Amino acid sequence: MTAPVALVESALAEFFHSRRDQVARVGGGYRSAVADLEAFVLRGGKRIRPSFGWMAWLGAGGDHRSPQAASVLRACASLELIQACALIHDDIIDASLTRRGFPTVHVGFTERHRAAGWSGSSERFGESAAILLGDLALCWADDMLRESGIGHEAMGRVSPVWSAMRTEVLGGQLLDIEAEAGLDESVEAAMQVNRYKTAAYTVERPLQLGAVLAGAPESLVDAYRSFGTDIGLAFQLRDDLLGVFGDPAVTGKPSGDDIREGKRTVLMAVALQLADRDRPDAGSLLRSSLGVVDLTEDTIEIIRTVLIELGAVADVERRISELTNRALDTLKTSAVEPHAAAQLRAMSIAATQRTY
Amino acid sequence: MTAPVALVESALAEFFHSRRDQVARVGGGYRSAVADLEAFVLRGGKRIRPSFGWMAWLGAGGDHRSPQAASVLRACASLELIQACALIHDDIIDASLTRRGFPTVHVGFTERHRAAGWSGSSERFGESAAILLGDLALCWADDMLRESGIGHEAMGRVSPVWSAMRTEVLGGQLLDIEAEAGLDESVEAAMQVNRYKTAAYTVERPLQLGAVLAGAPESLVDAYRSFGTDIGLAFQLRDDLLGVFGDPAVTGKPSGDDIREGKRTVLMAVALQLADRDRPDAGSLLRSSLGVVDLTEDTIEIIRTVLIELGAVADVERRISELTNRALDTLKTSAVEPHAAAQLRAMSIAATQRTY
Repeated sequence: MTAPVALVESALAEFFHSRRDQVARVGGGYRSAVADLEAFVLRGGKRIRPSFGWMAWLGAGGDHRSPQAASVLRACASLELIQACALIHDDIIDASLTRRGFPTVHVGFTERHRAAGWSGSSERFGESAAILLGDLALCWADDMLRESGIGHEAMGRVSPVWSAMRTEVLGGQLLDIEAEAGLDESVEAAMQVNRYKTAAYTVERPLQLGAVLAGAPESLVDAYRSFGTDIGLAFQLRDDLLGVFGDPAVTGKPSGDDIREGKRTVLMAVALQLADRDRPDAGSLLRSSLGVVDLTEDTIEIIRTVLIELGAVADVERRISELTNRALDTLKTSAVEPHAAAQLRAMSIAATQRTY
Repeated sequence: MTAPVALVESALAEFFHSRRDQVARVGGGYRSAVADLEAFVLRGGKRIRPSFGWMAWLGAGGDHRSPQAASVLRACASLELIQACALIHDDIIDASLTRRGFPTVHVGFTERHRAAGWSGSSERFGESAAILLGDLALCWADDMLRESGIGHEAMGRVSPVWSAMRTEVLGGQLLDIEAEAGLDESVEAAMQVNRYKTAAYTVERPLQLGAVLAGAPESLVDAYRSFGTDIGLAFQLRDDLLGVFGDPAVTGKPSGDDIREGKRTVLMAVALQLADRDRPDAGSLLRSSLGVVDLTEDTIEIIRTVLIELGAVADVERRISELTNRALDTLKTSAVEPHAAAQLRAMSIAATQRTY
């Protein structure tokens, strides 16, 4: 049984369907706005969080032919609604124009306002509508979890995991905007953002969610969490490298965008640390380039060379290897059911060695 | 037993306390940002939603000396965290600078960014931090409800009410920004915003929440809902009048701000409808004034006179009376316990006849 992308998507579509009458009753443009949200949620993505949750459930003894399977799947799928909010609100925060080849949600509403010639600022209308739709997705994540049918005992086990995950990811996002404001350039600060914004939220907590749904013993939950933190961190470090060195034809976004957006990645923090020790000129170049939106491809190419020469790329590659190896060791010595362990191993390798 | 403002606030303070370690672990500026959120939540407000919930519980047979009382109070208090999100995100949407005499949350973070000389746009930083803190409040509302201790059977009854309330209020807010964009000037459209943004969210659903917590029979729940819808609508209509005619010394905000902000109130919709029939000149004046931020006090005074002359003020006062009378009749013939009914009656009169 592989990653349940199609099942997750049909659970999400069913949830949206269940809200149709309530939304229609409110009237006005609500139905059409919610249809946009649905299209956004169903448009794609790798469904990585539900997949990790589901795989952890299977690996802790969950049976996909059992009567509980559909409920567990709905609970895991609800993670995609939290993610919808995170993406919609993040795109406002980062002023991103496109996502997955489509206008971002706030840009979509801005364009609609402008095309219709409505009164007031189109940008403000777009951002306002996107703030509200993100909020709705966040509320509906809870609804979907509560209505998943997992039962109140499982809900009691899931509740602290769910709660910690959301408190952590919002903290990670806040640390991230502080980092972009230049509050703390250290490698530790960048790792802390990765731990909460990515590792806990994307891998560790979804795995824990699946494990506690299966009623896994504490030792197994601990193994999942340790594995998940390491893989999650390695995943983000790979993402950092792709943000500068990725092939636009494969990643789907302009290479070097992380630099133009001023992202305070571990890659950049390591580079600045090494530059400050050995090459002040390189440090000046990096600091003066971060966040410059109209950086030319030539400058990006120079920065790539500097990152390699400084040894920052090698340092990050070493961190990825160490984290991945430790994670796979944890998995190997854990009590995770062998078939699920093999799947988790494959997912981990795909996530940390990917070129997209 | 009167409105439990102090008890609600201590339940909220306790909840924030319960999150302290988790927030500290994330590090960076998260603790200080959450302290700002806590100060915002505890700073005041009339706690109207928890009070209606609590009173409905008492009125449906809940006993404030019973062991369940503390749990019910926590569940009702969690409504204030939804409200915190609504206010924080609304203040971004409306670009409001102050609330309750303090800078709004986004303005507070903008000022902190500017004062510290951090890099990037101070406004963008402020809005981003406020989006995230609003999201956190929304998540914590769920956590607080789930951890309230009401038990899984009560939770099963509360869940659809909670879910409907949030879906409705976000729909009402979306309709509101559409109305401000001038999509639909009708009285019906303005009433629909009031129904979902105010009446359902502020009175009807909180009452229903308290009632189902007490396990009230359907007839009593229906009476509460009908009473709550009418009082909620009357409450908003009073707010509309105060937004134009209120005494700034009493309301705490400049009189006429609703006009400067371009709010599409029922008062304004009625006025436009009457003007289009009888006085096109008045219609032009109103339409050209809505949303003009630097409108002088002299123009506002002219608009006040026009609203009175058109009969719009009398129309809205008549609606308030009719709604309030019908609500109080519903209450009188309902099975609400007499002491709670007297309190609800007093709260309703205070909310719909207030001058602040």
